[in-house]
Amino acid sequence: MAGRVTLAHGSGGRASHELLAFMVQAMGGEALPPFEDAALLPLAGSRLVVSTDSFVVDPLFFPGGDIGALAVHGTVNDLAMRGARPLYLTLGLILEEGFGLDLLGRILASVREAAAGSGVRLVAGDTKVVPAGKADKIFINTTGIGVPLSGAPPLSCADARPGDVLILSGSMADHGVTVLGQRQGFALSGDLRSDTAPLHRLVEEMVAVAGQALHVLRDPTRGGVGTTLNELAQASGVGIEVEEGAVPVRESVRGACELLGLDPFYLANEGKLLALVAPERAGEVLAVMRRSETGAEAAIIGRAVAEHPGRVMLRTAVGGSRFLDMLHGEPLPRIC
Amino acid sequence: MAGRVTLAHGSGGRASHELLAFMVQAMGGEALPPFEDAALLPLAGSRLVVSTDSFVVDPLFFPGGDIGALAVHGTVNDLAMRGARPLYLTLGLILEEGFGLDLLGRILASVREAAAGSGVRLVAGDTKVVPAGKADKIFINTTGIGVPLSGAPPLSCADARPGDVLILSGSMADHGVTVLGQRQGFALSGDLRSDTAPLHRLVEEMVAVAGQALHVLRDPTRGGVGTTLNELAQASGVGIEVEEGAVPVRESVRGACELLGLDPFYLANEGKLLALVAPERAGEVLAVMRRSETGAEAAIIGRAVAEHPGRVMLRTAVGGSRFLDMLHGEPLPRIC
Repeated sequence: MAGRVTLAHGSGGRASHELLAFMVQAMGGEALPPFEDAALLPLAGSRLVVSTDSFVVDPLFFPGGDIGALAVHGTVNDLAMRGARPLYLTLGLILEEGFGLDLLGRILASVREAAAGSGVRLVAGDTKVVPAGKADKIFINTTGIGVPLSGAPPLSCADARPGDVLILSGSMADHGVTVLGQRQGFALSGDLRSDTAPLHRLVEEMVAVAGQALHVLRDPTRGGVGTTLNELAQASGVGIEVEEGAVPVRESVRGACELLGLDPFYLANEGKLLALVAPERAGEVLAVMRRSETGAEAAIIGRAVAEHPGRVMLRTAVGGSRFLDMLHGEPLPRIC
Repeated sequence: MAGRVTLAHGSGGRASHELLAFMVQAMGGEALPPFEDAALLPLAGSRLVVSTDSFVVDPLFFPGGDIGALAVHGTVNDLAMRGARPLYLTLGLILEEGFGLDLLGRILASVREAAAGSGVRLVAGDTKVVPAGKADKIFINTTGIGVPLSGAPPLSCADARPGDVLILSGSMADHGVTVLGQRQGFALSGDLRSDTAPLHRLVEEMVAVAGQALHVLRDPTRGGVGTTLNELAQASGVGIEVEEGAVPVRESVRGACELLGLDPFYLANEGKLLALVAPERAGEVLAVMRRSETGAEAAIIGRAVAEHPGRVMLRTAVGGSRFLDMLHGEPLPRIC
């Protein structure tokens, strides 16, 4: 195949899906169903859940976190979205020659703290060094292994059903706007912070309350809420309707998005989840989320419908409506 | 801590150990015993074996293999060295903007072929893109999960005992000299080829014959046979003696090493293993290795002794002897 890798291929939106389709074909079609966050696998009579993620965020340090915390939380959350309790994490580092050991030490301390805070054990590691100019300071891969929570539903992104209530666990776009703002040297308001946080405890509480009524969980990272909802709509063959006015967005985030010319629906979140829940249990699920630390600002933002399968309809605050597509065209590299 | 990452930190030798010690300290001492290739972990009443490795080899393609094959075999072999049957592999890609999709397709086809040839299933993946000049074409992380072979001994690098016989499964330095030769644009003889290959079937046969008499398995990758033997001697608290004349080295490899000014004892292998076996079973183990595809040229190259614990003594071909230290000073970056 002709063509080259572009930054848009890495943005998590439509181009990323095109690259993934190419890659799956190059591997002879042997790959995960492309939309799941983690794989559920048999092992010696039991089951395990596995996920891998690489982190190349720029800058390495930002308000609310750093690449180390992000690398732990990102993989912990991918496991949690499949209803798993995270147990083990591996850590693969690629370092650029000349990278300061003081910064490496700070990042590893952050990895350690995030792992302890997430209840996961670091069990294996690897470090490679490449010459100056052949990488950018530090890249981190984490791979996570967990076991399914007792009583957890299958939790596939293909399991949304018409009528399901759509919940977002808190304010949107905090991570993306913080990182992009930092990178562009914006003088941003002090309360912009990445939301990076582990979500497995929140998921545990949701599973305990909802059981099989919990159909879908996804964390809207790269590509944002807009892209993730399109993925869920396509994988499940349902339409999704979102009430724009119901979606929590901090004032500071909204302002920064306007300054930067960005749509918060397409900006990454690193400590939020989207849930689709059978309507009869949605109230209880929302209540338990709001009592938790990472779901205190959870809100019902929409629902799954039988109409326009595979597409996401946004009911705007001014009373209109339009389809919300996947992110496309906008390269937002190195957001995580 | 002051200081910066150097290329020597990535060479697998003494500087790598110093970096690892710094990293373990930065993480509060929570880390693997540093010399093991893979972690043996409890999971829901059974056990699993986990290993992670990143691959940054330059060039991407070389006689006998490419970065894709290497990324699969490297992790499969790390699992095998702990007596595991490899089951699952994750694939994390970091791509440089502008990297050709044709090359990406070739590498993924090679990943697929190597995975099929190794009997492992690719279960999860992730792809990140960084701007041109912020990475070098493609970096690959693989993380592997396996289960202990039935009847497998503990197989720790701390289990060598005085009297154990030291076996090398075939010729030394093939991978390292091939990659370094390619990179330096040497006109090298046609039979220089990387030895990249999966070793888990060889290990299965060795375990079946030797059982608990098999004490240590290690694949001498970065840092080569010389560094790996030092690691084993230190971890086990034994001395190791090596008969230089008994170590298989191809004529073409020996010649290229002389041209390049390199010592084959410090060059990477990607399809070889070192074994320490109780003397009463060494003959049987050697015999079964020699009947296998990847161990056809296996040889007894030395033994573990009670003298000079933690050090490796080389009995040279001309009748002298000297200590063979860990690789140090020589930065050999991006060999795998």
